[in-house]
Amino acid sequence: MNTLTIWTLDWVPRGPRGFVRDLRLRWACEEAGIPYEVRTVAFEDRATNHLAQQPFGQVPFLQDGDVELFESGAGLLHLARKSERLMPRDPAGEAQALQWTIAALNSIEMVTVPWWFLKISGEPNEKLNGWMTSRLDHIERVLGEQEWLAAGRFTVADLLMADVLRVPDVRAFGKRPATEAYVARVTDRPAFKKAYSEQIAQFEASDRKRSAGA
Amino acid sequence: MNTLTIWTLDWVPRGPRGFVRDLRLRWACEEAGIPYEVRTVAFEDRATNHLAQQPFGQVPFLQDGDVELFESGAGLLHLARKSERLMPRDPAGEAQALQWTIAALNSIEMVTVPWWFLKISGEPNEKLNGWMTSRLDHIERVLGEQEWLAAGRFTVADLLMADVLRVPDVRAFGKRPATEAYVARVTDRPAFKKAYSEQIAQFEASDRKRSAGA
Repeated sequence: MNTLTIWTLDWVPRGPRGFVRDLRLRWACEEAGIPYEVRTVAFEDRATNHLAQQPFGQVPFLQDGDVELFESGAGLLHLARKSERLMPRDPAGEAQALQWTIAALNSIEMVTVPWWFLKISGEPNEKLNGWMTSRLDHIERVLGEQEWLAAGRFTVADLLMADVLRVPDVRAFGKRPATEAYVARVTDRPAFKKAYSEQIAQFEASDRKRSAGA
Repeated sequence: MNTLTIWTLDWVPRGPRGFVRDLRLRWACEEAGIPYEVRTVAFEDRATNHLAQQPFGQVPFLQDGDVELFESGAGLLHLARKSERLMPRDPAGEAQALQWTIAALNSIEMVTVPWWFLKISGEPNEKLNGWMTSRLDHIERVLGEQEWLAAGRFTVADLLMADVLRVPDVRAFGKRPATEAYVARVTDRPAFKKAYSEQIAQFEASDRKRSAGA
């Protein structure tokens, strides 16, 4: 009865498919060989229908026995503690994986997400463009010098950083060959491909159910 | 020889004083009773003079024996593992503290920082205003229902969330009494006051040294 449960939305429009953040948790479970099931809350009224589980009305959230937690980054760090495949166990390697996980959330995504938000809102902003350039150039330099972010091997930090960097608009923002090769390398992993195709398949199954019900 | 070292800049202009993020790590050490020293890198050429320690040219970074790590959020989670005062040891309490720490970084600061950046650049943006309102209203609802974010007591999550929310422009963005009371309550803690006044004192001492050298 202690199967780990990843909660996501029961349906989303075509645009975000393949990018809904339950994918991060599916992917981590696939990398680590942790069994899991996926359950859903309704897309309709999502802003208010699951505030008790996720106080910002977002997904995913995770249930692991008595432990419940939201924020995909927190879910990843929780899963990482269960498997050395995601997070090295030596203190120096663990610190490296932790710092790069937080860097993906707070130094890269803190710039890419608002930049993207204004871009798709039709209000691209020069100040945010400059901030994007600076942060992505720093990452490009790092990835030109090393294959993985932490401990000389794939860790949860690469999973998250690649997930942040693989957004098509972010990839298209200037030419950064080391970053591009990194994203290709990480998303070529079988665990990513499985998580990705299963998320797509879930939403396509919802399409069919909706059509049948309509 | 194993004293924990917090690295920051040797000087900053008056504006950011009291908000440079080494304060988060000083504060956490004070809460936990962990001895530490503060060392500095030069403000001049800061964009490139310590890239080996911090790949985005920022501060703080932390040295703890053989372990080095950057990102204030990562430093806080590292320190939290050393002290139950910062992070509960039971799995459910720990998960709560972890999720709210990540929420401060990736659901709140991911909005407040770009919002503030465009505001002080003289380009306030209506889309970001709307995003700010939504996220801060969610936090206001949560803080209206509970005194602390996790485990019914002060944790590292409150330290970080309060540090994100205490920024004057953020506090002034609409009236949210529960948030305001929370920020006042958390920043009234002796550990915050000590960390804050010591950061201010450090930069004032640099002013005097600079004047003497000029």
